[in-house]
Amino acid sequence: MTGRSISPAVIKRLPRYYRYLGELLENGVERISSKELSNGMKVTASQIRQDLNNFGGFGQQGYGYNVEYLHSEIGKILGLDHIQTMIIIGAGNLGQALANYNFDRIGFHIIGIFDVNPRLEGLSVRGIEIQMMDDLPAFLEENRVHVAALTVPKKSARPIATQLEELGIRAIWNFTPTDLHVSEEVCVKNVHLDESLMTLSYNFRNRGQEKYSYRSYMDDKD
Amino acid sequence: MTGRSISPAVIKRLPRYYRYLGELLENGVERISSKELSNGMKVTASQIRQDLNNFGGFGQQGYGYNVEYLHSEIGKILGLDHIQTMIIIGAGNLGQALANYNFDRIGFHIIGIFDVNPRLEGLSVRGIEIQMMDDLPAFLEENRVHVAALTVPKKSARPIATQLEELGIRAIWNFTPTDLHVSEEVCVKNVHLDESLMTLSYNFRNRGQEKYSYRSYMDDKD
Repeated sequence: MTGRSISPAVIKRLPRYYRYLGELLENGVERISSKELSNGMKVTASQIRQDLNNFGGFGQQGYGYNVEYLHSEIGKILGLDHIQTMIIIGAGNLGQALANYNFDRIGFHIIGIFDVNPRLEGLSVRGIEIQMMDDLPAFLEENRVHVAALTVPKKSARPIATQLEELGIRAIWNFTPTDLHVSEEVCVKNVHLDESLMTLSYNFRNRGQEKYSYRSYMDDKD
Repeated sequence: MTGRSISPAVIKRLPRYYRYLGELLENGVERISSKELSNGMKVTASQIRQDLNNFGGFGQQGYGYNVEYLHSEIGKILGLDHIQTMIIIGAGNLGQALANYNFDRIGFHIIGIFDVNPRLEGLSVRGIEIQMMDDLPAFLEENRVHVAALTVPKKSARPIATQLEELGIRAIWNFTPTDLHVSEEVCVKNVHLDESLMTLSYNFRNRGQEKYSYRSYMDDKD
């Protein structure tokens, strides 16, 4: 797989496949046709076949897809078969919410939470002690960290992102309402809550004319 | 505007324009060329012109765009010129994080937080008292609610979404890691944290071969 170039649109759908197949597994479904998968995921059957062909298919004519196999294969493609470590920068409400959100389910283990607020020092969230930002360099020398989630105030976002890059972080999950200025060595995935809510606002206010709920739904996915 | 059909891709970029123009305003920038806007937003200048032409342009040859005017016009298009009301269903960490996140900046005023956990009853988050779900129908009879943010456990997501639709809610901001089954009368905007993190994981693990950080960045936007 890793030699191949896959379009961002396909990559963005893979987690949906993974999640949906996981739900099927929970419900004891052992196999599924691309048509059923298509109905369940609101993606055309041909789209599904195309997507999965990027990774060698996994489907069998007349049988459909083996749910468990497909789920685990997509998990491998997404790198979920290895435990990856994450730290959270910013121990405010959102940071604490992330710390309490169980990402171990998808292989992400939170090993550190950092903040600059001395009043938070030593407090624990889900068994993880909040440390001060000054301790981050030493922490990163001792611990391999794959992803840093950034939940700091907007004004601190860019300087801290730069610091994280200098400290060797190569993947930032950005929850701040601004775009980070880091080199292309660093993968950034933005979760801009403002923009998400504004999009909902637009779709809601214009739902009269078109099937915006549906289009918005697809828009999330594609 | 409202008579026109605008592609989801354009709609999805509008909040970025709005946010970016807002940052320019904060920095005292009064006007900007589509080229500067293009560099700042990592969208081609022709793309920007196309996008804004959907709404009648606002640009002046040789002058560029008036930042404040463009910002306020896009704000109107997004419906941010009216105060909209939001309730939060689920007063856990994420729900409380949203309650503490200042969405009033973009015209969204949180007027209620609901949960089923009696231990939370009467507690306040940012001055808003947590109420029990049983109180929701009466609350919705007395209060106009534009958007409901859904931050409940996965297993409760679909039944509660159905209940919200029955109670007249027409816009759901879904933070649960599942797709809701509501009619197309209801606008749904999903914030699937798992999927976002999985996408980052994929891009991070495959960043060697391609400029995935950049592609992922664009992927977020388009």
